[in-house]
Amino acid sequence: MKHISSNDMDQMKKIFRLNLINSCTGYKSANLIATKSQNGNPNVAVFSSVTHMGSNPAMLGFITRPLSVARNTYENIKNTSYFTVNHIHEKMIEKAHQTAAKYDENISEFHKTGLTEEYLDDFHAPYVKQSEIKLGCKYLNEYEIKENNTLLVVASIEHIYFDEGIQMPDGWLRLDDAGTVAVNGLDGYSLPNLLDRFHYARPGEEVKSFFKKGNG
Amino acid sequence: MKHISSNDMDQMKKIFRLNLINSCTGYKSANLIATKSQNGNPNVAVFSSVTHMGSNPAMLGFITRPLSVARNTYENIKNTSYFTVNHIHEKMIEKAHQTAAKYDENISEFHKTGLTEEYLDDFHAPYVKQSEIKLGCKYLNEYEIKENNTLLVVASIEHIYFDEGIQMPDGWLRLDDAGTVAVNGLDGYSLPNLLDRFHYARPGEEVKSFFKKGNG
Repeated sequence: MKHISSNDMDQMKKIFRLNLINSCTGYKSANLIATKSQNGNPNVAVFSSVTHMGSNPAMLGFITRPLSVARNTYENIKNTSYFTVNHIHEKMIEKAHQTAAKYDENISEFHKTGLTEEYLDDFHAPYVKQSEIKLGCKYLNEYEIKENNTLLVVASIEHIYFDEGIQMPDGWLRLDDAGTVAVNGLDGYSLPNLLDRFHYARPGEEVKSFFKKGNG
Repeated sequence: MKHISSNDMDQMKKIFRLNLINSCTGYKSANLIATKSQNGNPNVAVFSSVTHMGSNPAMLGFITRPLSVARNTYENIKNTSYFTVNHIHEKMIEKAHQTAAKYDENISEFHKTGLTEEYLDDFHAPYVKQSEIKLGCKYLNEYEIKENNTLLVVASIEHIYFDEGIQMPDGWLRLDDAGTVAVNGLDGYSLPNLLDRFHYARPGEEVKSFFKKGNG
């Protein structure tokens, strides 16, 4: 096995280090975060750091830099409290990636990428019409990660939309039925297929599959 | 599309809500976190919240509850500062899921699940031998998420191990070459395949693939 130490990392060129460190923690969620400014300008940007934070109450978080290309996203959330999280699917990976380009502040990525704004149930922020699983979220708090000057933004999940066919009777959404992708590193888009689903693990019992014969 | 509001979520049964909320944010990383107590007892537990936090310095974070089944993991990290993050691959999803069972404190999940401890370069915490991408990490800080009493643990990445063949010349690790899986919800294990990798997005230019002819 190749071994890379922190000393090796310190001496790497920037892009090489970005590619390595962004891919070494495993697959990331693939989402578009959409907002609307107080002036009514919509904004949409790709994020790979959206993370489940808790189920009761339903909460998620994501990491951002206040001065990154996602600055408009952060400012709109701070000013309006609302944003949406929209899954990226196989059919829209080029459009999703294009949202990372540094457009001028007055230009909406919706107009430049072919993604479509959709307004549902009087929610302030736009959803992405092409997305098959979408969440309406409300800002709750932020935590400054002082080790590298990033922010963890924490929000409640107020609305969930999805095609009914992808939900199993126990509540679980089967993401490969929606064609949701995952992110490998900064710029790789991967399509997962379900291998198996397991029942709650107990000491002294073999893991039981939901699907295979003779189990569960 | 089906619409679920926060009122609907409040009225759901616990397991149904857990399954829905854990799957609605997209795919999660699939890792085993391994530690060793001050007494020398090794511990390993499955985590789906390991998240990239930054590349320079190389940092990751994960979410835990102080009193969850992962309590031993958290206590060992607090007491010793060190832990490892080990990718879960297709070949080991049953063993990885079994680490979530509530074993007695003195029983090591390594002994009960068939996962193998491996010690590399005098690092205090064990790695998982079966894992093909593994990280040696050092505790830096923790942030209490007061909205739901969880903790974000933040750590530096001190060591990275992987098979050289999965790294591209620009530093990127191709995770499907390692057979790394992703988590769908609480208990679904999915195997991603790379669809495409794109160059840095620029305004006014079409997204360019790394692989397709006529691009890049």
